[in-house]
Amino acid sequence: MYVTGIGRTKFGTLTESMPELIYQAMYNAINDSPIPIEEIGAVYVSNFIGGPSEKQLHLNSVVSSLLPELRLPIIRVETACASGSSALYQGIIALSRFENILIVGVEKMTGSTSAESSQNLGMAGDRTADQMQGLIFPAHYALVAQQHMKKYGTTHEDLELVAFKNHNNSRLNPLAHFNHKDVTLEMIKNAPVIASPLNLFDCSPISDGAAAVVISKNSNSDRDVKVTGSALATDHISLSHRKEHTSLEAAKVASTQAYELAGITPKDLDIVEVHDCFTINELVAMEDLGICNPGESKNWIREGRTSIKGDVPINTDGGLKADGHPIGATGLAQVFEVTTQLRGEAGERQVDGAEIGLTHNIGGVGGTAVVHILERRG
Amino acid sequence: MYVTGIGRTKFGTLTESMPELIYQAMYNAINDSPIPIEEIGAVYVSNFIGGPSEKQLHLNSVVSSLLPELRLPIIRVETACASGSSALYQGIIALSRFENILIVGVEKMTGSTSAESSQNLGMAGDRTADQMQGLIFPAHYALVAQQHMKKYGTTHEDLELVAFKNHNNSRLNPLAHFNHKDVTLEMIKNAPVIASPLNLFDCSPISDGAAAVVISKNSNSDRDVKVTGSALATDHISLSHRKEHTSLEAAKVASTQAYELAGITPKDLDIVEVHDCFTINELVAMEDLGICNPGESKNWIREGRTSIKGDVPINTDGGLKADGHPIGATGLAQVFEVTTQLRGEAGERQVDGAEIGLTHNIGGVGGTAVVHILERRG
Repeated sequence: MYVTGIGRTKFGTLTESMPELIYQAMYNAINDSPIPIEEIGAVYVSNFIGGPSEKQLHLNSVVSSLLPELRLPIIRVETACASGSSALYQGIIALSRFENILIVGVEKMTGSTSAESSQNLGMAGDRTADQMQGLIFPAHYALVAQQHMKKYGTTHEDLELVAFKNHNNSRLNPLAHFNHKDVTLEMIKNAPVIASPLNLFDCSPISDGAAAVVISKNSNSDRDVKVTGSALATDHISLSHRKEHTSLEAAKVASTQAYELAGITPKDLDIVEVHDCFTINELVAMEDLGICNPGESKNWIREGRTSIKGDVPINTDGGLKADGHPIGATGLAQVFEVTTQLRGEAGERQVDGAEIGLTHNIGGVGGTAVVHILERRG
Repeated sequence: MYVTGIGRTKFGTLTESMPELIYQAMYNAINDSPIPIEEIGAVYVSNFIGGPSEKQLHLNSVVSSLLPELRLPIIRVETACASGSSALYQGIIALSRFENILIVGVEKMTGSTSAESSQNLGMAGDRTADQMQGLIFPAHYALVAQQHMKKYGTTHEDLELVAFKNHNNSRLNPLAHFNHKDVTLEMIKNAPVIASPLNLFDCSPISDGAAAVVISKNSNSDRDVKVTGSALATDHISLSHRKEHTSLEAAKVASTQAYELAGITPKDLDIVEVHDCFTINELVAMEDLGICNPGESKNWIREGRTSIKGDVPINTDGGLKADGHPIGATGLAQVFEVTTQLRGEAGERQVDGAEIGLTHNIGGVGGTAVVHILERRG
């Protein structure tokens, strides 16, 4: 199976409505694909908080309204921040029935107040055991960072380097939320604390945006990218049930399955997109994915091994940190980036000779993890 | 493929939380199935308004917490009031990858105020074109009823007969929301108007509840029920884009596809569950499904042809009207009833010799329609 079309909107604080964002991303992907729209057999739409934030559920019918009169099977999928990749995972399974499938993810977040956003984002966590006790997401990931620091000697300077790399990458991505913004290490270091040890620059932003992907059973174009691995795993929603906090078990399970399906090892990866909702999670992801050993991610970031010219470039589009994190779209934006890189169409941020890429998309604090492996058709 | 296990909770105003309801229905289905829990390969969870009403999204991870440490792929599906059947539709597709799949649907609705419920339910409709103009669901279906009356001479007495039949059926269903309640035609006729011509007894209630189904690629038990047809179609979300209002195009498309897959015609149906969110929709459904010709449903209900002893018994469990409508669970409760009937285990409400059944589950005012055809393994 193949990715035969990709499309997205700019990420950021946008004026467009949720249906308008869907429309843009969806038709960008359809126009990018050699598959005519009439040959799309089904659609999956991913969205996280369109109910509480935009008062709009039943998005599959909204998408139906934006298509010609095709009466297609369309389904909405939601798995918190992993919604986009879960919709793709589901679409890939549905290629057993349909020749071509469109997946579109969207989030409209900037219309909510801070208090509303906090409450809405909290719905990805355990309502009773965690959220009601104040364990909101920055606090969740602050605990992860504290544990990682204690166990491995990781420092806040290491997290600053993650943010710095990703902001620099986003300057090369015209569609990124923070494409316009020069960021210095000084600014990052001196940002206000959100949940110690995390400060503002450790947190991904509130973004609007949409992204879409067309997948097909067959391929007739060199621009198509092969999907060789697709896996989804889940875990307890409450952190109180987890055995350890410096690693996300679901991500380890999903990536192990995806590597096995693709017949590759982490050493084969040329380009990786990971779920850096908070900077600490980029380091945790590197270890969970086996890119480096547990505790070694700090050395990799210090040595610049994950920058565009490094051994394993990570988050070349700026990641969630600087490309932005419109939740329902995020996983598909990762696929957009990896596909663009594997096609050799990434311009200034192109990774030389990228042939194999991976996306790592997380819901909550690892309650869901989805991993995809993509390869140049060659 | 087969339904190998079914389970549900009582529907009604319940004290249990959403996770507790999921747990009950899920383990009831697993215990009903000959498939051991370790052989479940994936889970789909359907839920409509758990975000806005219960502040809990990421339900797939909540479900993961309720299972042994299986790290299963679990995905939440939402298509408004058709969420349950859409999850089943999706699960059936995923039998291409997994041997056995659990589908569980849940809704916790009675914790919200009336105003909150109205707002939450409205999220199934078009936010901008319809809902903001006051076209909430009772108003939507009132328009459908007005058009049906004008076009075919259907009367409010016909709708009263639908409510009366379904309330009577619910007296034979110990798990029904209104199992305890004797309802007379007089009570129905004199109920307060909600949106003319619809009165209180034309509307399905606000219910809590959960239902679950285990489906399997293979069958080793006579109690298993064969799934011979599964189809999902969508339509414009806004009524302003519909060409007619006395019929739901998506339901016609989905049922035509399902009949074709099953190789049957409407004449072969022995037991039918339709989406009577409002009484008028039971009549529309009969016509959309080809059980009778357009305009003839009023004659069928007058002649009692859809009662338990009639030609084509409809909503033997009480339907959404009297069994209840905990949205995410509804489509799976329909499958629960048809499976129970085809197994010959429906007790007092058993339809003699039922061999072929159909479920018809609608999202919004037909923005989504899902139809399944089930047959006795025989």
